[in-house]
Amino acid sequence: VLKSDMLVARTDVPPGMTLRQAGRKSVAMCVSDFAAKGVPPEAFMVSLGVPRSLPDAGVKGLVKGLGDGMGEWGVRLIGGDTNEADDVIVDCIMAGFSDHLVPRGGARPGELVVVTGEFGTTSAGLKILLEGARCEPAFRRAALENVYMPSPKLKLGLSLSGYLSSAMDSSDGLAICLHAIAVMSGVGMKIRKLPHRGAELERFAKRNGYAVEDLVLYGGEEYEIVGTVSKRRIAEAQGVASSLGTQLIVIGETTRGTGVESPNGIPIENRGWVHLS
Amino acid sequence: VLKSDMLVARTDVPPGMTLRQAGRKSVAMCVSDFAAKGVPPEAFMVSLGVPRSLPDAGVKGLVKGLGDGMGEWGVRLIGGDTNEADDVIVDCIMAGFSDHLVPRGGARPGELVVVTGEFGTTSAGLKILLEGARCEPAFRRAALENVYMPSPKLKLGLSLSGYLSSAMDSSDGLAICLHAIAVMSGVGMKIRKLPHRGAELERFAKRNGYAVEDLVLYGGEEYEIVGTVSKRRIAEAQGVASSLGTQLIVIGETTRGTGVESPNGIPIENRGWVHLS
Repeated sequence: VLKSDMLVARTDVPPGMTLRQAGRKSVAMCVSDFAAKGVPPEAFMVSLGVPRSLPDAGVKGLVKGLGDGMGEWGVRLIGGDTNEADDVIVDCIMAGFSDHLVPRGGARPGELVVVTGEFGTTSAGLKILLEGARCEPAFRRAALENVYMPSPKLKLGLSLSGYLSSAMDSSDGLAICLHAIAVMSGVGMKIRKLPHRGAELERFAKRNGYAVEDLVLYGGEEYEIVGTVSKRRIAEAQGVASSLGTQLIVIGETTRGTGVESPNGIPIENRGWVHLS
Repeated sequence: VLKSDMLVARTDVPPGMTLRQAGRKSVAMCVSDFAAKGVPPEAFMVSLGVPRSLPDAGVKGLVKGLGDGMGEWGVRLIGGDTNEADDVIVDCIMAGFSDHLVPRGGARPGELVVVTGEFGTTSAGLKILLEGARCEPAFRRAALENVYMPSPKLKLGLSLSGYLSSAMDSSDGLAICLHAIAVMSGVGMKIRKLPHRGAELERFAKRNGYAVEDLVLYGGEEYEIVGTVSKRRIAEAQGVASSLGTQLIVIGETTRGTGVESPNGIPIENRGWVHLS
């Protein structure tokens, strides 16, 4: 299994993110895909582009961040390429071996739609950084932590791979994931609850004039797993998640129809974070 | 076997090179390494960065160029990633499987130093494009062809892998290759002739005030194989090359010493084309 994911500073590194965090994030972006596919990542390479003007400390920071990723997810850096570029570019290429890949198109009607964490907090963090949105200090800390230190659920993804009939990494946004799984599986979806932080996010949205649905569904940059599990196996799968100190949240179910319906009955749109959209 | 090589338009795409040629070149850069290592490339992925302002035709050109590479070297494109960036960035990631890799450090004293083609013509092409160097029309055509349409010797490399005790792709320049093989093998080298186009290159150098040695040794951007073969096996190896309609040129031999000596007895320096040098 091979995966490449290119981090471009101008679009992928928000204000205040250190280059060390950027290096770590470039590894996280790949790890998140391996987590969703249930494949243990073995090793990675990095093609770096850096501006001639970047100070040595910047390069060292990037490399430290790659090291953080190595330690955190147990994956070795085995090579790469270094280039001069106009912007900091970190293309992470990850490799692993597996007999089984959790597909995008494996969901069947009557299964449960699950996610491994809450959505919308990262979007809120980006709004705080990019649009000056205001909020309570505790929420700000949580939101910026999500932005600067994304934490793909690798252990959980590897442990759940036998339970998930379909799965996808959510970094392009929850709505895009739900639609991709629905379309590729030939099912519809009825979402019954939006997985988010609750009152804190609602207050943030209200105070700054955002819709909670927009933050949760269309923001992107969360590194969670979105997937489906049969009803028969959900209790066991949730037991696995709680034994790892984390959670598997049921947010709806698959249907014989098409499209993805939100809790209020309105169709969820197929849009989110897409480069060059 | 995994290899990534990042093409950055500002430094790797000389004036007059089309985006189709740039796409093809990004594949060639990886293929050349597989050729030198004697490993058949199976498949590749591409992480693309393109400016928002790039017209559709530019993107299509890039993709056509990747297709050219697929056809020319029989390697499949299996995925990738697309991003917005300030410059055209094509990171090609190539994968293959092999039980045997021709190493850099496998040369022993008393072997022959070989190359699969001539050096200096590509450098001359870059001088023509970047410094306005002047030359004869036939030489100009050959030199620009080398720059725009690099042709790694994949078939030759795969056929020679059993003969080469060490090898390296020459895209960073002949001098860097010779030094890398010498250092990693713990041998010295005595180079007896510089492999180049002959009178044509000499006239070009003289007319424009360049030293032939500089063009041949330190230019880079040739996609040839530099390696070593034992004296016992050289005739057979050269027979393989000529049966493929190409050549394996002996340029010197390895010694028990250190360093790389040029035909005139002066040490060849360990420098060439290095990003951010």
